[in-house]
Amino acid sequence: MRAHLDDLTKPPGSLGRIEEIALCVGLIQNSVTPRVRGKRIVTFASDHGVTAEGVSAYPPEVTPQMVRNMLAGGAAINVFARHAGADVRVVDVGVNDPLDGAAGLVRRKVRSGSGNIAREPAMTREEALRALAAGVEMAREAADDGVDVLGTGEMGIGNTTPAAAVYAVLLSAKPEEVVGRGTGVDDDGLARKVKAVRTALELHEPDAADPLGVLASVGGLEIAALTGLILGGASRRLAVVVDGFISSAAALAAARLAPACADYLIFAHLSDEAGHRVLFDGSSWKPLLSLGLRLGEGTGAALAFHLIDAAIKIYNEMATFSGAGVSRRPDEGVESEAG
Amino acid sequence: MRAHLDDLTKPPGSLGRIEEIALCVGLIQNSVTPRVRGKRIVTFASDHGVTAEGVSAYPPEVTPQMVRNMLAGGAAINVFARHAGADVRVVDVGVNDPLDGAAGLVRRKVRSGSGNIAREPAMTREEALRALAAGVEMAREAADDGVDVLGTGEMGIGNTTPAAAVYAVLLSAKPEEVVGRGTGVDDDGLARKVKAVRTALELHEPDAADPLGVLASVGGLEIAALTGLILGGASRRLAVVVDGFISSAAALAAARLAPACADYLIFAHLSDEAGHRVLFDGSSWKPLLSLGLRLGEGTGAALAFHLIDAAIKIYNEMATFSGAGVSRRPDEGVESEAG
Repeated sequence: MRAHLDDLTKPPGSLGRIEEIALCVGLIQNSVTPRVRGKRIVTFASDHGVTAEGVSAYPPEVTPQMVRNMLAGGAAINVFARHAGADVRVVDVGVNDPLDGAAGLVRRKVRSGSGNIAREPAMTREEALRALAAGVEMAREAADDGVDVLGTGEMGIGNTTPAAAVYAVLLSAKPEEVVGRGTGVDDDGLARKVKAVRTALELHEPDAADPLGVLASVGGLEIAALTGLILGGASRRLAVVVDGFISSAAALAAARLAPACADYLIFAHLSDEAGHRVLFDGSSWKPLLSLGLRLGEGTGAALAFHLIDAAIKIYNEMATFSGAGVSRRPDEGVESEAG
Repeated sequence: MRAHLDDLTKPPGSLGRIEEIALCVGLIQNSVTPRVRGKRIVTFASDHGVTAEGVSAYPPEVTPQMVRNMLAGGAAINVFARHAGADVRVVDVGVNDPLDGAAGLVRRKVRSGSGNIAREPAMTREEALRALAAGVEMAREAADDGVDVLGTGEMGIGNTTPAAAVYAVLLSAKPEEVVGRGTGVDDDGLARKVKAVRTALELHEPDAADPLGVLASVGGLEIAALTGLILGGASRRLAVVVDGFISSAAALAAARLAPACADYLIFAHLSDEAGHRVLFDGSSWKPLLSLGLRLGEGTGAALAFHLIDAAIKIYNEMATFSGAGVSRRPDEGVESEAG
């Protein structure tokens, strides 16, 4: 694949990360002719008991409202997915609302919202496994449907707080390093978030060597489901495009459970949520975009789909030096085709 | 426009630069219903006498070869433009080859290659004006064709050297700060480039207060044409998407000639060419993407088209809080629509 990329009519490596993506997708697909057929965003929705601590700028009823908005096609993720030629699956794994009559919703509710992590575990270990299994199932369905590129998404008022708790445990970071303003809390809200995370860590003493236990004690149902989506996608050789701060918490957990899955991940963007940078500063993972997004839903992943498509098209559609009669660099030691 | 963006079902500002782009395009179009109909990349090709100083990794005959490759649809810019739904115009303003029989080429040759700036002026002032006029003409044609988003592109073996000279003059930078490896010169080649730029600056003593004189003495024909494209695009209220290092030299010159044109510019990406960063470090201009590209042709601009489309679709297609029955932030002081 590298030889083919270098035979295209451009200086070697001059398309930077576009070339890296083409190579990455080829390796994921174990194919020298990488392809992108179907593209899908799977957005898991869930509620969080920790909203009782005043950690979000929005009331919890926004979670089911936004689920309905997504099913009606009016949310940002719908606009970006249509633009990318991708479909969207919205999966309820823990919304605290029956969502009666919500057509198109994939119903995999494990429980109606997680526990308030500042006072109790988010869920039982068995519930975490059930949420994770729902994610694996969605990945398998995607693979069966001919999806090659799978994007992660989530909706859950309050979910930057449990995500920050997962970061704190798995990255050995201090709560104040990984807690951010989420949908836009003020300074008091930020202080409440830091306190909620610190309290949760002190209460549950989660063990970084037990990622499933971390998800159960201080995580969230959509974070557990996303962890399953990532593991399931990797197991079926899909390119898994990780969205923002919440999705990256799931990627961290997945990579701790099965390190090999990291080879299947493409990090879509650096979120504006403060803690996201801590993840990338301490790892070899590199985000593709940096657009100041802090919305979630899978929006960054959907925007990154375009670059993945572009990379695969470069690999498959560009002319080669010999084919186009273009001279190579003399120092490459290949005879000039012309001149 | 800002009120409409904040009424969409997302936390205010949570789509970061996507929202900024929507606002920017609306202001450019002087319209609260911004639109993107036609998209076009205009790629100007030219040769450079300074290649005699050993400043490029590729031989000069690659310029006409790549022009033919672009006209045949096999270059990277063709792949990206097709992917973006944009068309490509390839314009000869100074290729040192008659390009006989090259179908589809827009022929506006001012002269067959520029002079070697290390020994003589790149062109006369009158030639620079003619190249600039060719750019203005291409912008007007685009506007007449219904293009709303116009991308800049170039092809010219050796052109990072005159572009660096333009940066050095207009940014008051040292040659070694703005000279990079272009298509991939080695350390000796890099030293020759720095020397060529330094020699050119000493020989011509270009005056930063006279941007046209700078283009004529140490620039290049495609850089002058791009300057005209930018000025012409701005004059017709097009969003002008500036590609990489070379195109940004033209943007600098254009903004010195007519500062108001800067409001019409969207900088597509931060190039891997070392000097590009110097431009952004010292200005309010911010690149959208950072993908390690260093190819030119308009490739970064074409990739950025997708984000501009996405921004306009967000503005026009997303649901509003009231329309979708989604609760606002309590601190926004608006009654909740539900719950």
